[in-house]
This record gives sequence, C-alpha cells and structure tokens, in this order.
Amino acid sequence: MLTESGCRSRRARLFNALAPTIDRVVLTSPEAIAWCSGFAASPFVFRSQGATAVLILSRSGDARLVVDNLQEPFAARALGVSVEMPVWYRCVEAASDRRALVVDAALAALRELGAGDIAVESAHCPLPLASEIGRPMHDLGPALALARRSKDRDEIDQISRCFEIATQALDTTRANVRPGWTELDLYRSVAEQANQAAGETVSVYGDFVCGVGCEAGGGPPTSRVVRAGDLILLDFSVVLQGYRGDFASTFVCEGEPSREWSAMETACLAALDAAAATLRPGQPARDVHAAAVRVFAEQHLADHFPHHTGHGIGLGHPEAPFLVPQSEEVLAVGDVVTVEPGLYQPGIGGMRFEHAWEITPTGSRQLTTHKTRL
Amino acid sequence: MLTESGCRSRRARLFNALAPTIDRVVLTSPEAIAWCSGFAASPFVFRSQGATAVLILSRSGDARLVVDNLQEPFAARALGVSVEMPVWYRCVEAASDRRALVVDAALAALRELGAGDIAVESAHCPLPLASEIGRPMHDLGPALALARRSKDRDEIDQISRCFEIATQALDTTRANVRPGWTELDLYRSVAEQANQAAGETVSVYGDFVCGVGCEAGGGPPTSRVVRAGDLILLDFSVVLQGYRGDFASTFVCEGEPSREWSAMETACLAALDAAAATLRPGQPARDVHAAAVRVFAEQHLADHFPHHTGHGIGLGHPEAPFLVPQSEEVLAVGDVVTVEPGLYQPGIGGMRFEHAWEITPTGSRQLTTHKTRL
Repeated sequence: MLTESGCRSRRARLFNALAPTIDRVVLTSPEAIAWCSGFAASPFVFRSQGATAVLILSRSGDARLVVDNLQEPFAARALGVSVEMPVWYRCVEAASDRRALVVDAALAALRELGAGDIAVESAHCPLPLASEIGRPMHDLGPALALARRSKDRDEIDQISRCFEIATQALDTTRANVRPGWTELDLYRSVAEQANQAAGETVSVYGDFVCGVGCEAGGGPPTSRVVRAGDLILLDFSVVLQGYRGDFASTFVCEGEPSREWSAMETACLAALDAAAATLRPGQPARDVHAAAVRVFAEQHLADHFPHHTGHGIGLGHPEAPFLVPQSEEVLAVGDVVTVEPGLYQPGIGGMRFEHAWEITPTGSRQLTTHKTRL
Repeated sequence: MLTESGCRSRRARLFNALAPTIDRVVLTSPEAIAWCSGFAASPFVFRSQGATAVLILSRSGDARLVVDNLQEPFAARALGVSVEMPVWYRCVEAASDRRALVVDAALAALRELGAGDIAVESAHCPLPLASEIGRPMHDLGPALALARRSKDRDEIDQISRCFEIATQALDTTRANVRPGWTELDLYRSVAEQANQAAGETVSVYGDFVCGVGCEAGGGPPTSRVVRAGDLILLDFSVVLQGYRGDFASTFVCEGEPSREWSAMETACLAALDAAAATLRPGQPARDVHAAAVRVFAEQHLADHFPHHTGHGIGLGHPEAPFLVPQSEEVLAVGDVVTVEPGLYQPGIGGMRFEHAWEITPTGSRQLTTHKTRL
C-alpha cells in the first residue's frame, strides 16, 4: 500500500518542479492519480467500467478527488484527499453521461477554488476544462514524467509486493506444469496462483509461451501444447493499485536442457550479471545495454538479442529509464529498472531471464528473488 | 466478432444524427472506438498498458485510426480503417510521452484532412485537439449515446458470445464447488473456465459471494468460506473486445433450499417473468420495473428489493435504458437489457437471478440460457 506521507511528498515534489505562479494541478490519467493519492478503481467490479476520476491539487496542500458515487469504495481508500462525489446512478433515475458528470463537477470545484494558473496533463485532459475555465493552462506532462520516474519507499514496497505475489505464482506453476498443458493453462495457473497469493483479484498480463513460441520471444497464451522437454518462457506482471512488477524466467518442462540451451542460458545469465553490475547512479542507460551486448558479442550471439536490455517499471510498462543503445538517460537514485537479456534462435530455442533493481545512493538493490535457471 | 459492414453502418448512423455541416468525428473513448471499428487493446499484454487511440471519421466514409506502434497487433484487427502508427518505442531510443505522441499524430491527420466542422466526445477529448485545431468543435456526447443504445446484429452476436462463455464458466463452477472453497476460489474457477471456454484470455468481473455476502447483495470475492448448505450468488460479466454479457444466478452449495429460500426464489422468478413479459418496443422502462415491484409487493417483500429491475448492457455496464422507477426512457428495437430482481433479507438470505433480452420489432428475444434455480 502507498502511504499518505508518500502521496503528500510526491504532490509537493510536483509543485516544486512547476513555475511558482501555478497554484493548481489537475490530474486526469489513472497513473498520475494513483501516484499521488493511491486511488485506483478495481477492474474486477462493475462500478469501475467506464468510470472517470479527476484529482485537483492545490499548492497549499489541499487535494480534491472528484468521482461519481459508484466509485465510493475506491475513493474511500484514497489517501489525504477530500472527495467530491456527484450522484451518477442510484437505481432511481436513468443515468446520464458519466464522464461529463465528473468533468462538470471538477470544473465547478476549480471555479470554487478560485484564480491562479493551472497545470494539466494536456494529452489526457478533457476539453471542457480548457474551453470553460478561461485561465492560463500549462502542460504538466514533462514535469510529471520526471517526478514520477524516481520512486519513493512506499512505491518500491508496492512494486516489491507485486514481485512477491508473482514469484509465488511462478514457483507453483513451474512445479505443477506437465506435458499436455496449453499456454492458456500456463496463464490460468499463474493468474489463479496470483489471486490466491494476493488474497484478492489482481490483474496478470504478459507472455506465456512454450516451444516455438519461445523462439518468437513471447506473445499472449494460445492453445499451443507443452510437450515434455519443451522450453517454457513466462514474462509477466502482477498489478496492485496500478503498480506492477514485471519479470521473466524460462525453464524446461520435464527434461534436461540441451547442450545448446545450456550455452544460451550461460550467456543470458552472464549478460544479466554484467548489466546488473553496472547499475548505479550516474551510469548512462546506454552503457547498461552495452554491457549486456558485450557479453553476447563475445559468444558471437549478439545477432540473436534483438531487444532492449531493460526498462523502468512502476505505474507504466515500459517507462523511463530505457536501457537501449541510443538512450540519453542517466540512472538516478529511485529508478526501478528491470534487466532482461534474451536469446532467440530459430530452430533451436528462445529464452529470457529478467530481474529488477532499484537504484540506491551506493549502487543498486535487487527487488526480485525468483528462480532464473532452466 | 463485429463485422466491417456493422462498423460502417454505425458510422453512417452517427453522421446522420449530426448537423450536416459536421464533416469529421473524432472518437477518443475506448467504447466509441470499439463500437465503430472493433478496435480493442487487450488488457493482457504489456503493449496496451497506458496506451491511447484516436479514431477520426469523415462523412465521406474515410476512417483513420491513430495508435502508436506497440498497438500494431490490435490495430491489425480493426475493421474498415486505415491505420496511422507513429513509432513510440522500438527498443533503440528512450520513449517519449506516449499519449502526447498519439494526440499530436491525430492533430496532424486532422490538419491534413482539411477544413470542416468537427464533433468530439468533449468529456473524453484531450485539450490539444481544441486549442490547436482552431475549427468549430461540437459535442458528440448525446448523439453518440443515442446511436450506441440500439445494438446491431453483430453487436448482439458479440454479447451473446460473452453469455455463452459465461454460461460454461457458471455451469462448471456450479458443478465443482464444494464446502471449504472461498469466494476467491469461486472467482478463480469462473475466470479459469471462462478463459478455457473462450480459448483466449478474457476479463471477468462481478459479484462472487456466499452466505452473509448474499444478504449484502454482492461484492468482490473475499476469503469468506463456503459452508455446506450456503447460498452462493454469482453476478458476473465476461468481456470480449469491449462488449460484455452480465448475468446472475444463485444456488445452494450441497444442500436443499430452506422453506424461506424457496419462497424468495419463487417470488424472484415470478418478478423476473413478470418484468420480462413487458419487454417490447414502446414500453416505458419504468413500467418494466413496476411489473417486478408489483410481484414482490403482493408477497409483502417489496422492502427487500432495493435496486433496479435491470439495465442496458453492451460496451457499458450499466447503460441505457435503465429499468428504474423514475426513468423517462421507452424501450426500442435493438435495446439489450438485463432483468435482475433480487431479495435480500438480513439473517435469512439473499439471492438474485438475471437474464438478458434484446428488444425486437415484435417483442423480445432472450439471449441467456443459464440455470436460474436454487
């Protein structure tokens, strides 16, 4: 769970990054609202279907969450906010336009809060807020992206909880899988175990493939059947209140890895170690990628590593920083990054291993503990 | 699956409902885009996390879908559109603001398409489309809501497919549940069976409760344990490309219903039948509700029926028409409605039974076939 002090500190950090004339911030993307209030509508109930929320922050510290009445259970868990809750539907009258209702209520709240410049998420801010409010509007986008990149302790705890749940789901599925399962069975096993480990319904998404599916690097689960001795590649995320862990592992279903697979595994894990060893504040993101590529190049395998070495993870997936050859980013304290080198050889096999780290003042701390051996 | 002819006919219907000076329609809500193009990003892959889409329709019939390159697999399945796909991320450079990229590309496409009035979904349309395009903007909201209410054949087929999958998941869960299962086990069973029946990952959400949870009318699944002889109330939806079925049933886990439960069941099913018998074009929505209430009132049970008799279902949940006491709506051909009377008596038990119908020229046609007996 995020903490109220964490949410308040993120709001203050955001205002500090904005021009001092800006008195109000209007947040409309689910990620930004979750980031500084913990508000997240569960996708597992009808109440959240097609719902909208607006969060109005004031430099004074005031935070006003505007949602319709069906979102009351989620709003009740938001941290350090007052809630404005227009009635959208109460089983008495026919309901009107749900999004318009919330946007209109947010407009009214903004008018009541009075003059001052406003910063909004332009690309995610509904029109009426511009055309009717008539005050200077600034784009919050870049400042918000920067502020969101460095994770606070409560955010990292939340991501770590996602990893714990995902690890239990991976371990159990790895222990239970048998020849004859389909890729969909792999997904269903992981999702079921994740719900059990979480003690609530959680979203699970990612790559669930076996056999030739591994050579393609991943994909959604299909009816492809796992055979004894097949590779199984699972790269998935568990989502809690908008935050997600993202990790990967590859293993053999009832069998020993071939000599070629073992060589690929050794190379992947060496690339993982080499890239992980570079993780520290001040490190150019491109150099983390270069460290992984170097290992593969020494084994003449670099042509079989077609993707990034890793990426930031949190409310977005992927998000900054990006561990890619032409990144201009530099690692900083509070970054949470995954490292996921992989090799995919047609006719032979494909595999990927992924762990995650937070960047600390002295280097890095690994957040994941799942098994990454064939 | 929606059909291309269905999508084209919905676009034409939408333009017919707008002033003739309006040459372009800009759709930005996932529901509206799914409605007239079949485009729906799967929530089960990383590619869709935080993604945005814009669909630009022209009165001439041209339809341009703007999405970033990670959404290519979903865009490939969109019907009767050309696709504009700016590169957001290709594992080479660090990625920029994903939503801004798509909004900017949509703006450029609008400029290229040239002059003419534009209609947008105001409450869901990003600011830059207003502040930069500088052409008259009209709110599409009411016309869109009206156009969406009457379902086409391909939409009803899609909703029916959701019901088929949900029915298999309900049947299997009902057959398998044993004392000692938790409500979360009920959810996991339904979700797992729905994935199996669909042959792909599908979203499942709703009420999964037992025992006293039924007296509350529903709620998300918890660790509450099912005991022999308990009532189990399942009210859930399966989502396919944005469309959903929504139905409910209540049953006893390993045991016979008590005399009181049987009386409640008889009343609920009589209310369901009475309300369903009123379904026809021209029927005031409030009268459908009144028909259900009348049955309960005759049994002196009306105080235990606190909610609507039913509602429209499709891309929204709930959506028009609303079967409630103060609705001004009148049923029309193409409406898809559920009817779900329920009774909740503290210390005794709670139950709800829900079926769905489409309104046809001569009356109605039932879309659901699941068992609704204790």
